[in-house]
Amino acid sequence: MQRILSSQLTAHVRETVTIAGWIHRRRLLKAVAFLIVRDAEGLSQVVVTEPAARTQLEELTEETVVEVVATVTPNEQAPGGVELTEPKIRVLSGVAAPLPFELHRPAIGAALPTQLDHAALALRHPTRRSALRIAAAATAGFRAALTEQRFVEIQTPKIVASATESGANVFELDYFGRPGYLAQSPQFYKQLMVGVFERVFEVGPVFRAEPSDTVRHLAQYTSLDAEMGFIADHRDVMAMLTRTLSGMMAAAAPFAEVPPVPSEIPAVHFTEALRIAGAPADEPDLAPAHERALGEWALREHGSEFVYVTGYPMRKRPFYTHPDPARPAYSNGFDLLFRGLEIVTGGQRLHRWTDYVEALTRAGEPLEPYAGYLDGFRYGMPPHGGWAIGLERFVARLTGTANVREVTAFPRDLNRITP
Amino acid sequence: MQRILSSQLTAHVRETVTIAGWIHRRRLLKAVAFLIVRDAEGLSQVVVTEPAARTQLEELTEETVVEVVATVTPNEQAPGGVELTEPKIRVLSGVAAPLPFELHRPAIGAALPTQLDHAALALRHPTRRSALRIAAAATAGFRAALTEQRFVEIQTPKIVASATESGANVFELDYFGRPGYLAQSPQFYKQLMVGVFERVFEVGPVFRAEPSDTVRHLAQYTSLDAEMGFIADHRDVMAMLTRTLSGMMAAAAPFAEVPPVPSEIPAVHFTEALRIAGAPADEPDLAPAHERALGEWALREHGSEFVYVTGYPMRKRPFYTHPDPARPAYSNGFDLLFRGLEIVTGGQRLHRWTDYVEALTRAGEPLEPYAGYLDGFRYGMPPHGGWAIGLERFVARLTGTANVREVTAFPRDLNRITP
Repeated sequence: MQRILSSQLTAHVRETVTIAGWIHRRRLLKAVAFLIVRDAEGLSQVVVTEPAARTQLEELTEETVVEVVATVTPNEQAPGGVELTEPKIRVLSGVAAPLPFELHRPAIGAALPTQLDHAALALRHPTRRSALRIAAAATAGFRAALTEQRFVEIQTPKIVASATESGANVFELDYFGRPGYLAQSPQFYKQLMVGVFERVFEVGPVFRAEPSDTVRHLAQYTSLDAEMGFIADHRDVMAMLTRTLSGMMAAAAPFAEVPPVPSEIPAVHFTEALRIAGAPADEPDLAPAHERALGEWALREHGSEFVYVTGYPMRKRPFYTHPDPARPAYSNGFDLLFRGLEIVTGGQRLHRWTDYVEALTRAGEPLEPYAGYLDGFRYGMPPHGGWAIGLERFVARLTGTANVREVTAFPRDLNRITP
Repeated sequence: MQRILSSQLTAHVRETVTIAGWIHRRRLLKAVAFLIVRDAEGLSQVVVTEPAARTQLEELTEETVVEVVATVTPNEQAPGGVELTEPKIRVLSGVAAPLPFELHRPAIGAALPTQLDHAALALRHPTRRSALRIAAAATAGFRAALTEQRFVEIQTPKIVASATESGANVFELDYFGRPGYLAQSPQFYKQLMVGVFERVFEVGPVFRAEPSDTVRHLAQYTSLDAEMGFIADHRDVMAMLTRTLSGMMAAAAPFAEVPPVPSEIPAVHFTEALRIAGAPADEPDLAPAHERALGEWALREHGSEFVYVTGYPMRKRPFYTHPDPARPAYSNGFDLLFRGLEIVTGGQRLHRWTDYVEALTRAGEPLEPYAGYLDGFRYGMPPHGGWAIGLERFVARLTGTANVREVTAFPRDLNRITP
């Protein structure tokens, strides 16, 4: 008999059906026992009264995989208005060790390190599973919004010959006997691909050898990158990002409470942002407390959970950043804050080969490590810009989760390389 | 004035428009000059007669990025039936070095290594760009087909504590002072995630330290992975793969000539495949010549460009492969051949913890390196299976390209880590 899902039960009232899933919980009362089976779509309640089935159930443990053939019976008190009666239970796969924590409570009782040690089990908990489903939906929304705007998906190298974003925080590997590095971003490649498709995006892993153990850093995270050519300046990029963000939220809406994305997200220049945050005018960057203050300001003044900060000082942005032509000490780079935390960095990039040579020379950097990257700029690149969204930070912020590890399937950090 | 694309010209006949793109080609005739501008959508022909514009054009070189304001004029002899006249040409970005090869001929004249050295330029050629667009479309089709079938997208670690597929061909890296390895596949993680979502997929990079330099191996390639639970055996996986492949072909159809995917792809058991290929009955695996013979057989006998080979001998498949219960020396693993080349490997996996322990012990492998992976199988995993499609091989086979490097944006191999 074809298996049906828990969500389909109500369409089969009084029929005999087959369901399958994990034993989520057993409740062994005196006269009756309840078996709650969890599948991809939710929970089913199975009522066990027959003595042999009761004995069988008493010997099983939570997370055993079972197939249940039973009758769908209406019961207003059951979740979903139906329960399964007169079950025949068959074990598909047993449990070989005591569970390190229970999955049927509102939150997992164990400490986070224990959860991460047993990630394959912890991720079955509804809250953990939900975060990953939101991530999947938001990612699909990202792609759909950009595909609609003529962006083409690319896949780029994760092993590179020299560090990209900076010399620090890079993983080194043995590449057929010579040194290689894990890419800290697809930055250079997505820029080069503007020369091919004008508009490109990539969803992929990026690697940062973060030496510090914080709630918002991972050694590997998923970066949602986009880059577009033929822009006037960074404001074209921000408009496209706003539209994309709106698509991501719409896609995530069936799985999460999402805030409205204003059609025009408030934007403040860095110098103004310092003033709003009450920071000294000579601060070179925004501290976390400043970001929080800006988030509060945007909500209070504009009713927006998002705020752009534009015009970051050139000296705090990477060498490929395009300066503001009117105020060259400031950049055409921006950050997007969501509920007071930076989740996107973007901006306009340099597009002329001579500007790159000059920028690297001024920074005292040798040209040689960037030769392969710079080569593409010799052959005509239009004005362009783009952004990178940190997926895990985005989901953590959206779901109100303090630690990005709780919304990552198998996180990697300073202390963790397993499971 | 808002820029329009080459594909939109015919909707603006006799209007003044702005286009922008790369100088694809100049033809400087005696009385007239033609400027062909390339943008994301195609080519536009600009007619230059005015002496000052002619002089300007003579000084520009191919690949210069220009903006052209001109009048759209019907001309039956022009490509698309329109050309641009009375142009004003503005340079957006110049060319800083002579081009190493021309882009306006049907094929790039330079040898492949030269093309790869200047990949950012070579990828602008219509044939190279087309292959990447096909890859993007097929990938979108893969995701759409699986999402429709309740698969959830996942992102898994690319840095792991021990080699996954085998001890060989793995890249080692320095992970905060201890050894780490680049994942050769998301195999273990996608299996563990069956315990969470029942059905999952991942599109991501995988890494193989291939010591040999062939036309079909890369050190990094894009793997289209899927895994599904609650199957009867590998045939459920094959049926889902066939459906997915059909979705990929439909998505690629606007950009490539795609073969029909039979609703039931012919499948032959390994022992039968040897007989068809004229190989000795004791061969443990299929050689490339055998695969080609099977491809020819499937086309001849079944009119199919695809053929499944099932039941590979257990001793040639990885330890997680599920044996055929009726003939335990053979597996429930399969390959899919496309035009005589293996592009997919899949099968049913072991799902019981005790079976894993036994399989590893029998293979003489220590359990310890697999501890994190095996832990998930202690807590109830349903019968499951899945597959991995090599995206670059798939596109190479679809487009009739001999070398996978020609359909990869910035390939990585034994000898190449740049650009």
